[in-house]
Amino acid sequence: MEYPYADRMSAFGRSPIREVLKMASQPGVISFAAGSPNPSTYPVKEMREILCRLLDEQPARMLQYGVSEGYPPLQEALKKRMREKYQSFSDGDGILITSGAQQAIEAFAKTFLNEGDGVICENPSFISSLNAIRSYNGGRLIGIPVDDEGMRMEYLEDALKREKNIKFIYTIPTFQNPTGVTLSLQRRKQMLELAKKYNVMILEDSPYFELRYSGEYVPTIKSMDQDGIVTFAGSLSKILAPGIRVGFLIGPDEVVKKVTKCKQISDVHTSTLMQAMCSEYLTGYDVDGHINMICDQYRASRDVMLEALGGIDERVRYTHPEGGLFLWAEMPKGYVAEKLLDRILAAGKVLMISGPAFAVGEGEFSNCFRLNFSMPTHEQIHQGVDIINRCVRAYLDE
Amino acid sequence: MEYPYADRMSAFGRSPIREVLKMASQPGVISFAAGSPNPSTYPVKEMREILCRLLDEQPARMLQYGVSEGYPPLQEALKKRMREKYQSFSDGDGILITSGAQQAIEAFAKTFLNEGDGVICENPSFISSLNAIRSYNGGRLIGIPVDDEGMRMEYLEDALKREKNIKFIYTIPTFQNPTGVTLSLQRRKQMLELAKKYNVMILEDSPYFELRYSGEYVPTIKSMDQDGIVTFAGSLSKILAPGIRVGFLIGPDEVVKKVTKCKQISDVHTSTLMQAMCSEYLTGYDVDGHINMICDQYRASRDVMLEALGGIDERVRYTHPEGGLFLWAEMPKGYVAEKLLDRILAAGKVLMISGPAFAVGEGEFSNCFRLNFSMPTHEQIHQGVDIINRCVRAYLDE
Repeated sequence: MEYPYADRMSAFGRSPIREVLKMASQPGVISFAAGSPNPSTYPVKEMREILCRLLDEQPARMLQYGVSEGYPPLQEALKKRMREKYQSFSDGDGILITSGAQQAIEAFAKTFLNEGDGVICENPSFISSLNAIRSYNGGRLIGIPVDDEGMRMEYLEDALKREKNIKFIYTIPTFQNPTGVTLSLQRRKQMLELAKKYNVMILEDSPYFELRYSGEYVPTIKSMDQDGIVTFAGSLSKILAPGIRVGFLIGPDEVVKKVTKCKQISDVHTSTLMQAMCSEYLTGYDVDGHINMICDQYRASRDVMLEALGGIDERVRYTHPEGGLFLWAEMPKGYVAEKLLDRILAAGKVLMISGPAFAVGEGEFSNCFRLNFSMPTHEQIHQGVDIINRCVRAYLDE
Repeated sequence: MEYPYADRMSAFGRSPIREVLKMASQPGVISFAAGSPNPSTYPVKEMREILCRLLDEQPARMLQYGVSEGYPPLQEALKKRMREKYQSFSDGDGILITSGAQQAIEAFAKTFLNEGDGVICENPSFISSLNAIRSYNGGRLIGIPVDDEGMRMEYLEDALKREKNIKFIYTIPTFQNPTGVTLSLQRRKQMLELAKKYNVMILEDSPYFELRYSGEYVPTIKSMDQDGIVTFAGSLSKILAPGIRVGFLIGPDEVVKKVTKCKQISDVHTSTLMQAMCSEYLTGYDVDGHINMICDQYRASRDVMLEALGGIDERVRYTHPEGGLFLWAEMPKGYVAEKLLDRILAAGKVLMISGPAFAVGEGEFSNCFRLNFSMPTHEQIHQGVDIINRCVRAYLDE
């Protein structure tokens, strides 16, 4: 039978990252490709302890259907943390627990996007979010260039002036994926003003914002919003563990209620046991101490990578992220990261992700690549970056 | 700010079931409203044992990102079970692990439905599936009447002849929600022939099919399909526990691959720990013995309910399900189940769900109601049905 797929299925593509990640599990590979937290940071002992206790004390509640809004104690724990620590939950806000931040993005897109509606985003940006958006608006993404202070406001304003039917700005303002850059405080204020002026919403996706290794904390855009413009997607993947699939969405109560309707018909609710494990951890354990430990580990890895990259050909520029999991490198125009990937794979089974995986438009960023520093060991970073450095020089000198 | 919701948000409504369920948690309530398995059936001890072992032996794998297709050992365990026990996995098929069967339905709908495409379903049917479909096709559901042998084939053929752009038939053929009826073997064959003749797919949603208490097993429609017409959505919610949110989709490999793309941008993957718990249970424990135990318990509850309903006014008709969680009652035309609900709530805090919650069209089945027998105790069934019987008589005699 010939299957009659929906039109939307041609609007979003395969994920090139996934193809590379399949190689990453081969022996001897040094992978800078993944976007994963390091399993050594997972609080396994505590999770095991919590799970046993939950199943001993409240088995029926843990295993029965729950409400779509989320497990109430987890909602409360996250509200409290986001309100008190980050001023990112206000009166009039609601919270939805999601199956990872990915679901928050997808359900938000479903709630707002008609075919042909525009969404503005950083270019490059996170492929899976872009695909979730494309699956509802037919692919009308307007990409805005990024520099060391994040999305460039003059291009944003141009786009807002020029484009019709923009529903929202999708931004990863802090330690952006893939570039690692952070939107400056001033630009956050500007973005919020522009959104207000042009009557568009902001979807602030911030899975990494608690992983800062240097520099000063920059408040969330959500915390500056007095007008119900910003909805914030957060994740426990990077501070607890990603495999448990727990994230959340905070925004104006009316918006969150609508997104909850989409969540409800998507998977009814997020695994209660996983939600309860998170809430027990957040309320009964030293989560800030745990985050500090993660930051110490990733800071050291970032520093090793930046040091090793000191030896790269000076025609290559790269970002110096103050947190998160990635940095972004750019060869001179005309050079192709896919070709570099062939060389570093051949020279020493080294993996990275080439720029086009993160591009809004076909063929953009072909001279760029993303490097992850949270997964490899220091030794792997030294070894792998040395190989990259050598291959880059050989390629550029060719 | 005035929020610019997508058009689809007006195509699917609030779930009236959820409103009633909020009352169900009040003390002293006898609820026949929920569609939940009984927590007394959950294999808590075994789950606890498995979770501890998984976290002791493979913590990194359990908590790290996984692939969207599903945890491979769970895919294998389900393939084997569905192939060997139910002939419902063939060469050329693929399997996707989903966050509950709800996600399988939603992602299938997303994969195939454009605005305005038609979907045929039983009327009445499961509200959350209908809403998932409505969220993609603008609400074009064509409901087919149901009798004691399930969907009526003459109406199905009429609809297939009459309606344009039908993408698929959505059916719950076994112990249907809400009616409890089972599509007969002959009608299954007819449905498959009609689907083939009119070139539409079948989405077979069968979360209850392993919960049979009497009568003979009827093969899945999937098992009869030689032409890649049928995709099967299954669930572990009713045989293990619903709160863990694990379901699956089996269908032609090409179709499953496309649905997987939607799953991937929806929540990346289903919680690895929950998936691994299921695969360990399926491969290391006596799942068939466990299902027999559940069937023994629910059979007894069904029998108590049917016996108690023997005392209902004879103008009320009700189904005699051979499995599943529900039966369906019908008062004479003109009587309104919502009014009966007011009476039984007042008389003894008894809850059920009125027919319109399951209707394809506005206002249909207002004289009908669904009763669940898996959750209440025998005593509650006796007491609650007695109250229903008395209130029905008073209402009909008024």
